[in-house]
Amino acid sequence: MSTLAQVLKANSEFMNSKTIQRIHENSHSVSKFPNRHLAIFTCMDTRLVEFLEPAMGIKRGEVKVIKNAGNSITGPFASTIRSLVVSIFELGVKEIMIIGHMDCGISHSTSRELIQKMLSRGISLDAIKMVEAELELWLDQFHNPIDNVKSVVYKIRCNPLIPKDIPVHGLIFNPNTGAINVVIDGYKSKIEEHGTYYAADVERLEKI
Amino acid sequence: MSTLAQVLKANSEFMNSKTIQRIHENSHSVSKFPNRHLAIFTCMDTRLVEFLEPAMGIKRGEVKVIKNAGNSITGPFASTIRSLVVSIFELGVKEIMIIGHMDCGISHSTSRELIQKMLSRGISLDAIKMVEAELELWLDQFHNPIDNVKSVVYKIRCNPLIPKDIPVHGLIFNPNTGAINVVIDGYKSKIEEHGTYYAADVERLEKI
Repeated sequence: MSTLAQVLKANSEFMNSKTIQRIHENSHSVSKFPNRHLAIFTCMDTRLVEFLEPAMGIKRGEVKVIKNAGNSITGPFASTIRSLVVSIFELGVKEIMIIGHMDCGISHSTSRELIQKMLSRGISLDAIKMVEAELELWLDQFHNPIDNVKSVVYKIRCNPLIPKDIPVHGLIFNPNTGAINVVIDGYKSKIEEHGTYYAADVERLEKI
Repeated sequence: MSTLAQVLKANSEFMNSKTIQRIHENSHSVSKFPNRHLAIFTCMDTRLVEFLEPAMGIKRGEVKVIKNAGNSITGPFASTIRSLVVSIFELGVKEIMIIGHMDCGISHSTSRELIQKMLSRGISLDAIKMVEAELELWLDQFHNPIDNVKSVVYKIRCNPLIPKDIPVHGLIFNPNTGAINVVIDGYKSKIEEHGTYYAADVERLEKI
């Protein structure tokens, strides 16, 4: 059976199952407005599926969930920033959590190896040349998931489209054990008017 | 209690709960490589949390999950394309599903209203001016979640960084009932060499 057929079969079974009854019973007042006023931004990693949300005590109807490879911000108006802007101004989000995870695949990837794999699969060199510099800037700078969380908090915190009264927290998740640790407490971190970063706990962060 | 404190408390309780034992028992061979070789790209909507994955029969360890506002592709090397590139060339993904959903918030938003809200919240006009054209192109073109699914499938299908032998399916999800319908069957849709789109079922698609 094809993957698409498997998904459609699973959906048909789901629609007739007790699981969907239970979901409906537990979420009768659910709307597109997250009732905990929270947006989380995390990684696409498959170990987080059906694991991160329960590990955070997050349920349907409570938060907006944004995910990409390595919870990466790739520009000042990248889709994650747009998603946060819509979340804040249209959907009542008042707080943001960035959740990186240990053993993130992106921290093990290099642009050189990836390009070799793309070429050997028949991707055109011209297409690769169009994105090579951006690929290097992204993959070859991503060495450590904790540093990436700090960098992403910083990028969001400094983005002039994000109101300064929105706390931006940085957390790190263990995708095997389920444990969560704080990297940046967004209630304590502030931005100076000119965009220079300072945090009450900046010295502690340097040591993580 | 602050939202951050709530999340940390929930995590502490989770770590000592039976839920985590059950998750570990059910996912002993989980790694970063999705064992169903599938990546899904869907919306950040909170109604999908803990709902879309069970509705698709998807479990931890099986798929990569990418999410943003309106499952939008904002450029030829936007973070979603990067996430798919890494998924395919580094993590063994062989198939892609785009899953839009009915009543998507993005289809009800306009750039004009959003900009008014941003200005009244104190966001600088200069910052808004830097992104105004992109915001219009994104929000004011997004009228219908099904059309958006077709457009996103088309953008991925035509992207020269995505191998042509990777099926790209388009699905639409009902965020209230949990039902899934096929918009584009990626096994039947092909791209001509010069990038013109044709689908075996293109006439049917026009009528959805």
